[in-house]
Amino acid sequence: MTESSRPNWARRVQAAAHSLSDRQLDALVVSNPLNVRYLSGFRGSTAWVILTRAETCFLTDGRYAAVVRQGIDAGDLLEMTLDVVESTYDRSLMDVLSRTSARRVGFEASTLTVAGLRRWHELMPSLDWHPTDDLVETLRLIKDDAELAVLRRAGQMLDHVARGLGEIVASGRTEREIARAIDAALERVGFERPAFETIVASGPNSAYPHARPTDRRLSTGDLVVLDFGGVLDGYCVDLTRMAAVGHIDSAARSLFEAVSGAQRAALGAVRAGATSADVDRAARSWLEGRGLGPAFCHGTGHGLGLDVHEAPRISRAESGHVTTLAPGMVFTIEPGAYLEGTGGVRLEDDVLVTREGCEVLTTCPSDLVVVSPL
Amino acid sequence: MTESSRPNWARRVQAAAHSLSDRQLDALVVSNPLNVRYLSGFRGSTAWVILTRAETCFLTDGRYAAVVRQGIDAGDLLEMTLDVVESTYDRSLMDVLSRTSARRVGFEASTLTVAGLRRWHELMPSLDWHPTDDLVETLRLIKDDAELAVLRRAGQMLDHVARGLGEIVASGRTEREIARAIDAALERVGFERPAFETIVASGPNSAYPHARPTDRRLSTGDLVVLDFGGVLDGYCVDLTRMAAVGHIDSAARSLFEAVSGAQRAALGAVRAGATSADVDRAARSWLEGRGLGPAFCHGTGHGLGLDVHEAPRISRAESGHVTTLAPGMVFTIEPGAYLEGTGGVRLEDDVLVTREGCEVLTTCPSDLVVVSPL
Repeated sequence: MTESSRPNWARRVQAAAHSLSDRQLDALVVSNPLNVRYLSGFRGSTAWVILTRAETCFLTDGRYAAVVRQGIDAGDLLEMTLDVVESTYDRSLMDVLSRTSARRVGFEASTLTVAGLRRWHELMPSLDWHPTDDLVETLRLIKDDAELAVLRRAGQMLDHVARGLGEIVASGRTEREIARAIDAALERVGFERPAFETIVASGPNSAYPHARPTDRRLSTGDLVVLDFGGVLDGYCVDLTRMAAVGHIDSAARSLFEAVSGAQRAALGAVRAGATSADVDRAARSWLEGRGLGPAFCHGTGHGLGLDVHEAPRISRAESGHVTTLAPGMVFTIEPGAYLEGTGGVRLEDDVLVTREGCEVLTTCPSDLVVVSPL
Repeated sequence: MTESSRPNWARRVQAAAHSLSDRQLDALVVSNPLNVRYLSGFRGSTAWVILTRAETCFLTDGRYAAVVRQGIDAGDLLEMTLDVVESTYDRSLMDVLSRTSARRVGFEASTLTVAGLRRWHELMPSLDWHPTDDLVETLRLIKDDAELAVLRRAGQMLDHVARGLGEIVASGRTEREIARAIDAALERVGFERPAFETIVASGPNSAYPHARPTDRRLSTGDLVVLDFGGVLDGYCVDLTRMAAVGHIDSAARSLFEAVSGAQRAALGAVRAGATSADVDRAARSWLEGRGLGPAFCHGTGHGLGLDVHEAPRISRAESGHVTTLAPGMVFTIEPGAYLEGTGGVRLEDDVLVTREGCEVLTTCPSDLVVVSPL
């Protein structure tokens, strides 16, 4: 990893600490595992970062303490104090907060459960607990150079897998066999794991946007949705391509062309200053113009990063989630249309918002992959 | 699937509804995905079950509605009303609760986030919201016949993988290669996926209980921890076996013998009426008697079911989690001892509590798998 692409943990922690003082909090308990990873690089299952005015504490248990110490020795997390849990996370949190004299303490309202907050109230009754919303997530919305380096590389790797689909998809193979072959290809190109359960939905199954692979064998005339993604260094990319087995009828062909047009329209609407709803509208209007409004039963896209579904949501204005796009945001563009009887089509690429438009991170052709009938 | 091993969803829903009236609640919103699956068999990512006095509602969105209708047609979920989300889950929940005239509504405190509860308060200010703890989890603690049939079969399948370890583990192979080969074997015997990230920890890495596989190559004198599990029909089983490459020194040999004795002691302590702490004590006393108390830095086991870590916890009385064992409980017995310098040893089997003792679900030998040096 070059120096410039090495994550600057200290800068991320400073940015979070800045948001803290904006909210007049003495401390913030970061317990969302992806936010913990964003601030520290920690990949284990459990750790909390406690930002205070006096210091930043990294709290984990005996399973991970040695690994974290190694990380500190390697030059990461230098700015943090390591606290190892003796009995429970809650008790160690109490120790840290009393050591740093924090009174007004923020927590992550979208992660902390009602039961978790109740325990903290009981254990630390003298503290003022304040819900915070998306404090670290807001920082994660704009990818930094280290993140973009990983996402660009991941996009190229996913392209590589997509270019091999013609050899993986074959008439007579089952959806499950094809999904396995895609997963193997994801691993072969270097992803640490699939970003989600690979979708291979053929023929009638393609009409269900979130179908799981079955033992159905591909046969002539099938439309096949192939939706897969990979995780590289913790970052997720996500792609959908379509295949057809032999000759497909004109209704299926029109459906493909309509979704393809909607995707182009949405890609053309992405630029800094536009809103997420503008991008959704571009895809949706195109499909509505072809009578496919009701067949497009989901949003146009979702943010990508440490989470495979994160902000911004690219959906209708009515959803209540409207984001003004800014350089550094990364998300999918994936319109689809689903008709029981005919089948379904979805096409998906990943984009980075730039000042003038967008950089497409997945650049392999989105043409229909036509495979020979048996 | 035979009639007797087909899950009796209606009986599970009735049991949950019974707990509801015990707590004088008009309704309960079940949002923990594993609890939803337990009550309905639903395998998608998002759905809520809303138990009310008048009816039981199954709430999901357009992505899953068709699949759920198929399930209803196939004879499952017959007792439930299907409600499809139009705009948001929260709004649909409001519709269901107003339709059923519920006032005192329970929610799952360990699943619902503070932000989620705040939204419900804002949207439905006239309702009384009551946290519930482990209402459905308590039902899940005692496995029914359908669950035991799956867990027994899964145990046998995991045994089959374990019996092949002698061919998978080889000097010169990397930890990561071995982990991949184990994952492939898990899939080959019919598991839908590994139950967690397979652990292969060799030589110095074996001293870390939750090490991730690295590119380290196995070499002579290594102790190797092999901890893996599979998911069958949603149910998790979990096993740890130990390998040695060629001759291991006497310290490593003693460590293995000590952990093996601790596991036998713990297995001997399992029976209906004993407590989880008794079982932990049996393993811990054995290791303490050999000076290995501090080297045993985790609990003795954890429950298995739809979750790979669920109740009961088999840990010290001081942990505050003491469960009186009852027939139908299923959990792991996995004492370990870890010494920096020497390495670590863990042995793990899965057991079902019976009236007189326990039925071990994983019965393959737990002897050290000795592989030839290069």
